[in-house]
Amino acid sequence: MNELELVERLRKMSGKDRRSGVVRGIGDDCAVFRPKANEDLLLKTDQLIEGVHFSRTMPPERIGERALARALSDIAAAGGDPRCCLVALAVPRTKADKWVLSFFRGLLRLAARTGTVLAGGDLAHDNKTHCSVMAVGAVRRGKALTRAGARPGDQLCVSGRLGKPWDQRIEPRLALGRELAGHATACIDLSDGLSLDLHRLCKESRVVAKIERIPIVRGASLERALHGGEDYELLFTLPASGKPPTGTTRIGKIVRGTAGTVWFEGKKLAPRGYNHFT
Amino acid sequence: MNELELVERLRKMSGKDRRSGVVRGIGDDCAVFRPKANEDLLLKTDQLIEGVHFSRTMPPERIGERALARALSDIAAAGGDPRCCLVALAVPRTKADKWVLSFFRGLLRLAARTGTVLAGGDLAHDNKTHCSVMAVGAVRRGKALTRAGARPGDQLCVSGRLGKPWDQRIEPRLALGRELAGHATACIDLSDGLSLDLHRLCKESRVVAKIERIPIVRGASLERALHGGEDYELLFTLPASGKPPTGTTRIGKIVRGTAGTVWFEGKKLAPRGYNHFT
Repeated sequence: MNELELVERLRKMSGKDRRSGVVRGIGDDCAVFRPKANEDLLLKTDQLIEGVHFSRTMPPERIGERALARALSDIAAAGGDPRCCLVALAVPRTKADKWVLSFFRGLLRLAARTGTVLAGGDLAHDNKTHCSVMAVGAVRRGKALTRAGARPGDQLCVSGRLGKPWDQRIEPRLALGRELAGHATACIDLSDGLSLDLHRLCKESRVVAKIERIPIVRGASLERALHGGEDYELLFTLPASGKPPTGTTRIGKIVRGTAGTVWFEGKKLAPRGYNHFT
Repeated sequence: MNELELVERLRKMSGKDRRSGVVRGIGDDCAVFRPKANEDLLLKTDQLIEGVHFSRTMPPERIGERALARALSDIAAAGGDPRCCLVALAVPRTKADKWVLSFFRGLLRLAARTGTVLAGGDLAHDNKTHCSVMAVGAVRRGKALTRAGARPGDQLCVSGRLGKPWDQRIEPRLALGRELAGHATACIDLSDGLSLDLHRLCKESRVVAKIERIPIVRGASLERALHGGEDYELLFTLPASGKPPTGTTRIGKIVRGTAGTVWFEGKKLAPRGYNHFT
């Protein structure tokens, strides 16, 4: 297949969903998206690089799924509904078209399950595989969750259990994110480890967090639960009177102090999580 | 600098422009964008890979500028106004922070000049440099130019002259794109060469094109003007009664026939332009 044939194939695979707002998708210079009245759009881009974010042996379906899942996890953290995505993919010349189609099959399975339309992208060859996914979500105007709204007195909560192993399947917490929009005061997805992501939330909100307990995955170490970067759970704050939704746990509270400080077992917890750039 | 410090630095460099619609930019899980009433959004992602789309010796400012310029050229082709962009960048560990800041300085200079806000992104390390830019533009509802509207009888036109050398600076034709929105029947930017891009336009519009003449850059070969991939001019169709805007040339006409066929000097012109994926 040449590029034109491959794009034609992807256009057929991607399907159509008018409700998504995509009025013109794959096959043009730009995708055309029609926003609904009274909604804000959420924009996210995330890259996945062989040997950095996934292992060489991961099957292409899983890589495609993972690439979209990571971006959707951020849409979830902002309390949004996914609408569409664009995918830039580079693969070695040695990879057959079959590989590329499998990558997109994995991505499109998650896309269909979450109401996300593949609206465009870019294909290229490089000496190893890497891709970036740009996801567009929507949220009621002014209701996007950010890292910036936590206040002293708030409860600190997290979904699921922490310390998941590397390369585990990611299930973006979209239903929870939608439930939290309008209730949570701040939210972030745990993609770089609790210590670093909580530090970021506290810094943006200009507050301090005290961790009281941590729900840990069976068999995982405390170290991994604190600093591992593969959980993709939502970390969020609720007013003192709020009830943490089913499937989430109160793990501590927000207090006043030097913005960004995190306390755990009487000591300051350094932001040691996965810092891609050091 | 670690990643947090670098992101903080970029946030300061990126500035703010409320008119752009970006209500929350760098520093959160997602950027939050507020669309205006009665507009469609244009979404584009494009990647730039060292050794594929630019040479190793290109200065970082030029690479950053080029990455954004390529995406904005597609916004121009759809008749849109650029609003914001997200940038995923991977660089080798050996590259100093200074390199990354220079890359963004080049990108942000073009961004400021075109009213594009840097709203977010992702940084990572890899063994060589690559990036993808996702650009968001806006156009009056229903007025986006696509490849699909050319009709038999239309004039075929192009901006500027064709056959520019590789690695030349790109000036996205935004003013022309805005002028064409609502007048041109179809439009595409010349990023893969006239023969391939005109074939694409004709295929999407289900028409045939006859090229009568080609404005060529001084010193360039006809071969390069027909199949070179670095022009970033707009190729568009106008109703027979329309007057080509200043700076553009009528190069042929649209006729009936097998969708996608292009005629030049009495022969069928094969789509030989830059096909990234063969």
